[in-house]
Amino acid sequence: MTTTHGERGSAAVRAVRGSAIRDLLAVADRPDVISLAGGLPAPELLPTRRVAEAAERALTAPSVLQYGLTTGAPALRDVVHARESEAIGRDAGAVVITHGSQQALALLAQALLDPGDTVVVEDPGYTGALQVFAAVRANIEAVPMDAEGMRVDLLRPIVERGGVRVVHTVSNFHNPGGATLAAERRIELARLADEFGFWIVEDDPYGRLRFRGRAVEPVAAHSDRVIRLSSASKIVAPALRVGWMHGDAEVLALVEKLKQGADLCGSTLTQAIAAEILADGPWSDAHIGRIRSLYGERASALHAALKRAYGDRLALTEPAGGMFLWGEFADGTDTAAALPRAVDAGVAYVPGSAFAVASSHTGALRFCFTTAEPARLREAVERLEKVF
Amino acid sequence: MTTTHGERGSAAVRAVRGSAIRDLLAVADRPDVISLAGGLPAPELLPTRRVAEAAERALTAPSVLQYGLTTGAPALRDVVHARESEAIGRDAGAVVITHGSQQALALLAQALLDPGDTVVVEDPGYTGALQVFAAVRANIEAVPMDAEGMRVDLLRPIVERGGVRVVHTVSNFHNPGGATLAAERRIELARLADEFGFWIVEDDPYGRLRFRGRAVEPVAAHSDRVIRLSSASKIVAPALRVGWMHGDAEVLALVEKLKQGADLCGSTLTQAIAAEILADGPWSDAHIGRIRSLYGERASALHAALKRAYGDRLALTEPAGGMFLWGEFADGTDTAAALPRAVDAGVAYVPGSAFAVASSHTGALRFCFTTAEPARLREAVERLEKVF
Repeated sequence: MTTTHGERGSAAVRAVRGSAIRDLLAVADRPDVISLAGGLPAPELLPTRRVAEAAERALTAPSVLQYGLTTGAPALRDVVHARESEAIGRDAGAVVITHGSQQALALLAQALLDPGDTVVVEDPGYTGALQVFAAVRANIEAVPMDAEGMRVDLLRPIVERGGVRVVHTVSNFHNPGGATLAAERRIELARLADEFGFWIVEDDPYGRLRFRGRAVEPVAAHSDRVIRLSSASKIVAPALRVGWMHGDAEVLALVEKLKQGADLCGSTLTQAIAAEILADGPWSDAHIGRIRSLYGERASALHAALKRAYGDRLALTEPAGGMFLWGEFADGTDTAAALPRAVDAGVAYVPGSAFAVASSHTGALRFCFTTAEPARLREAVERLEKVF
Repeated sequence: MTTTHGERGSAAVRAVRGSAIRDLLAVADRPDVISLAGGLPAPELLPTRRVAEAAERALTAPSVLQYGLTTGAPALRDVVHARESEAIGRDAGAVVITHGSQQALALLAQALLDPGDTVVVEDPGYTGALQVFAAVRANIEAVPMDAEGMRVDLLRPIVERGGVRVVHTVSNFHNPGGATLAAERRIELARLADEFGFWIVEDDPYGRLRFRGRAVEPVAAHSDRVIRLSSASKIVAPALRVGWMHGDAEVLALVEKLKQGADLCGSTLTQAIAAEILADGPWSDAHIGRIRSLYGERASALHAALKRAYGDRLALTEPAGGMFLWGEFADGTDTAAALPRAVDAGVAYVPGSAFAVASSHTGALRFCFTTAEPARLREAVERLEKVF
């Protein structure tokens, strides 16, 4: 098969940069490399037995292998509606089940944004969001983050200039920044959406993975201009590819219309499995408890080892949940340039530049602490000390 | 939750018309209605036991619940590559596993078409294709069909005018038209693609469901400017949501880039199930044999009953495979206008107008013959006689 057609593709595909993280995963997949570069759940907590039980029960009826509704299996939508209504302390609105919450993000971008429309993202930004906003050729504006999440005070002048359609935030345990948006900033963000009429996309895959401190009310608790996304990937298993969005019925009707063309419908089988497991409160709570405890231990181990190795040279987030720890060298260290040496030394991370929007983040790096045991995390930091 | 924001959405979503078929499925889902409107596989042949066996085996390793590669599980890609290489009699090229072949179509449209670019479709057209081409705001040109498929002789003047980027064809047992593209037309279509440099999207979900006559070589056998799509939905189960595309590596690399943003990856679990079942040649062949035999019997029963009821008043395709039978009243009957009366009489179909591109197809209708037994199909035609 020849590959000499020189096909460059549409303006949409040319606008998307490849994911440096994905390319890295290939490199870091050597057994001698401790990879803190991925964003994978701990494999030892993937509930194969519980999923097998649910699959066996589901597979007694042929309907579980049939096409389903574009909006998702009613039983799963009901569980999600109940859960999310509880989380936001009000009616969760309409619910659409998606192929992971990444699909929710992609469809929302297509439904709401025309080329040149302004979308505001956090900087550093979630690469999956940057990709979908680039693919619809939106005008992407960046708002920096600090330890309390998005600098909502710096958002105000941007929305006052006009033309903002969407603001995207990873509200809890930011990927990659680690920070959680502070309560008063959530209220202010919601107020801005009501005042200026933009949509907030509250992307919250990690909210239930809190291992320290108290939960903060979702942004969706404060405004009906919030479309809230979450997923079963981090609390049950990524391979179910079950995500969801909920909120305004008009916006979700637009998404449904696009989803028909995008994939007709999701998997009735994996949605039945997810519905059974998410509805099983005692099991789910205990399982999420195990994840929190394991991740908390690992986050502490990595944080302590980095602190010991680098002291004040490396500014670190102190993770209270989620999967990531963000560090920043303030001494001119270039983490992207150092990466090949790090991989040679047997450790991988994602350089901050992979998440750059307006700032370059050349001195920053993201570590995922979920997949290695404490001793292995300490070993990773020892290897890192040979590089930095 | 208020829904009074008056959100109209992007130009992309406004360009998409809702699927009349989907809306109809809701209406026709009453137990007293014999629905020939859907496009579902026969539920009694959905292989719950075989899928359960494969699921049980897959779920012994946690990796089956983890995130996977964007291009799909290597084992499944290998099976597909081998199958498709055999089908086209040459190397199948690159393979990407998609969330049903509908996702393949949507990603190809996004990767190859800019707003205003010309895509040629068959008329009547597959609604899922019309939706994705509308969503990228392509210029959609129609080529009529006859009993031998797309009128490729009428395609030539269109491509000679210039600007054609993509030609979409459902090459076997067309949805909705029933026809199969004749061998010499396939060769001519391939020749045009080579001469004028457009891409052919050969959409072939039904090719293996032939119950009469001899298979025709795929269009992809004749040119490397063909991206060929197929799926496990009609030969194993829709709920696996396993589709695929194969062909030119450069085009598939563009699709992979967009798929990262669209959903990160597919389900490692359902891909493992599909890989095991598709690699199990003896079981697959026997299973597809059962489907062919059942569908052939049902197609004949419906065709005979309609012939008996309407004679020459209704022009009918004679299905040699697939799931659909297309009929056309030449006496001014308006099938869309009659549909509510048909549903009242206890039978549902899809009016031709739902598939209209340039022609209106007001006298036409599509029947799906897969989900009702012969006696029930005859009963449906009796009910229809009260309407027409």
